[in-house]
Amino acid sequence: MKAIGVRRDGDHPVLLEKERPTPEKGEALVRTLRVGVDGTDHEVIGGAHGGYPDGEDHMVLGHEAVGVIEKPNGTGFDEGQVVVPTVRRKPNGETNEYFRRGEPDMAPEGEYFERGIVGEHGYMAEYFTSPADFLVPVPAELAEYGLFVEPVSITEKANEHAFSTREPFEWRPESACVLGNGSLGLLTLWMLQQKFDRTYCVGRRDRPDPTIEIIDELGSTYIDSRETAVDEIPEAHESVDYVYEATGFAPHSVQTVQALAPNGVGALLGIPEPWDFEIDGGSLHNEIVLHNKCLIGTVNSHITHFEDAVETLSAAPNWLLDDLITTVAEPTDVAPAFENDDDQIKAVVEFDSL
Amino acid sequence: MKAIGVRRDGDHPVLLEKERPTPEKGEALVRTLRVGVDGTDHEVIGGAHGGYPDGEDHMVLGHEAVGVIEKPNGTGFDEGQVVVPTVRRKPNGETNEYFRRGEPDMAPEGEYFERGIVGEHGYMAEYFTSPADFLVPVPAELAEYGLFVEPVSITEKANEHAFSTREPFEWRPESACVLGNGSLGLLTLWMLQQKFDRTYCVGRRDRPDPTIEIIDELGSTYIDSRETAVDEIPEAHESVDYVYEATGFAPHSVQTVQALAPNGVGALLGIPEPWDFEIDGGSLHNEIVLHNKCLIGTVNSHITHFEDAVETLSAAPNWLLDDLITTVAEPTDVAPAFENDDDQIKAVVEFDSL
Repeated sequence: MKAIGVRRDGDHPVLLEKERPTPEKGEALVRTLRVGVDGTDHEVIGGAHGGYPDGEDHMVLGHEAVGVIEKPNGTGFDEGQVVVPTVRRKPNGETNEYFRRGEPDMAPEGEYFERGIVGEHGYMAEYFTSPADFLVPVPAELAEYGLFVEPVSITEKANEHAFSTREPFEWRPESACVLGNGSLGLLTLWMLQQKFDRTYCVGRRDRPDPTIEIIDELGSTYIDSRETAVDEIPEAHESVDYVYEATGFAPHSVQTVQALAPNGVGALLGIPEPWDFEIDGGSLHNEIVLHNKCLIGTVNSHITHFEDAVETLSAAPNWLLDDLITTVAEPTDVAPAFENDDDQIKAVVEFDSL
Repeated sequence: MKAIGVRRDGDHPVLLEKERPTPEKGEALVRTLRVGVDGTDHEVIGGAHGGYPDGEDHMVLGHEAVGVIEKPNGTGFDEGQVVVPTVRRKPNGETNEYFRRGEPDMAPEGEYFERGIVGEHGYMAEYFTSPADFLVPVPAELAEYGLFVEPVSITEKANEHAFSTREPFEWRPESACVLGNGSLGLLTLWMLQQKFDRTYCVGRRDRPDPTIEIIDELGSTYIDSRETAVDEIPEAHESVDYVYEATGFAPHSVQTVQALAPNGVGALLGIPEPWDFEIDGGSLHNEIVLHNKCLIGTVNSHITHFEDAVETLSAAPNWLLDDLITTVAEPTDVAPAFENDDDQIKAVVEFDSL
């Protein structure tokens, strides 16, 4: 079967010919429909993130997949059921307390593999196998958009964790700001539009731009961070109750505190490299304390977040999901899916369709 | 009546002779027993924090008070009931949504006064009045120690807010570290000893020292931050699940993230002045995200936290509360209560006893 991977000494995705995998007991065989490409894939290809499976000279890419059950193999799934796989797996078939609790997203580094990212092959192949416990059923109508389930699950977790921090008091948020106008930022913006009276989305692009068009269409306000830094948002617009950071731009963690309204919460999701810079650490500390602010970091997601994401995506307008997918590449020519230009929002590799 | 205050142009507490206050409708008259002195009082005296009541040339100090009902004035309290007053009040007798919800601790700056700190006289006087809604009944056995109810309520809120951030997953914390060995740090250390398997307390003192003796007696581990910086705690001891910061030392906000174990939470309570310094902002951001960490700021407390604090203090060993109170000063000679030397843990001004 065809697969897209990266070799240990490589710096770009290559087409591989591999054996079709055979499901073990408890696993189903899945025929892949589509696999999304995101920033993590680019980091994996560039060597900045992740690691190859032991003893392999390559890793199959891809962690945002949707497929159909080809062989249920006694797992209880029906043949033809559309499914999305989760990403974290137990290393070497072992288990640990986090996986036993159904919370692999809370496992510390070294206690998990991530398919297509760390230690295990990903889903960018004609077929993959997965334990049934790590497959989430998706309605057939969502087959085309199922690759968004994994990224949206990341936001489901971030929102759950962030909002839980405000549970001890009566939080009445009105405004939210998304830092980052990639596909996940835009999907999150739509999600936050359902909950907040006013939303903002921060990018660094000139009009005309397809992401700014989506921000406009959603009724949100675009903020160009080259003109208005994140810590200047209160002066230029308003201080916001919720900040969702998806840029990986390290100064944003500190600027988020200044952008927040009293009693606000900021969710950090980006993964920057080390970077020394000066801050007013006294005012930062003071501002967090005197206004009961909170900064929460969140990574990955678990199966209930995937289930929530399926529900969320079922309510999303098709125009948005269609507009987000700017490239559909064939496995035999994936280069367009790995190009990073301003017209690209979400690229997918399509192996098959329903 | 005698009162201890600070004049607008003053830099030390002075004995004042004032009219005994008359309770308005809904208010009780309280005869003061004891009032504690804390770091905020020193900041108020030094002019770094707070502000004088409008039109007054002085402010009566004190926000950690315990007293007895002298005149119930139709409030439903019994004469002789021991009570502790909360601190935040509505400005100018007005109300706002935070007070209406019983959460004045979540009101932003400008939306509250604080008795003895911002805009309203404090409790360091022979008598004070307070709306009955802001008085918490305390068992007579706690009369001597009732001045600890307010500070402990601050920790009750901090713990509630911090632990709620870990509600979305199964958090199994084992270790906690208190930054700061003042009276609140030591009381908090005792509280955390009840919940965590292992605790640490960070100070910058040489043995022999009365606070380190208490840390030893509690079975906790003393860490001298001159030898082991907060971000070196994981290497020297272990990474900890909970950090409670009560130093106001600005670098501690950043170092706390490094001291935390994966999925840990840090509560910040100190209020530092502006202070520029360099940090590795990339690694800070990265560490918060990849290990699901959380930093939460918390200030003040509301009436349910005071009620929780009464319960907590009822269970505290008397030796601890006795050892914490190192100075009991007379209103006519309060200077010893405002001295800040290494033998001082908690100073109180005593107006009367039961």
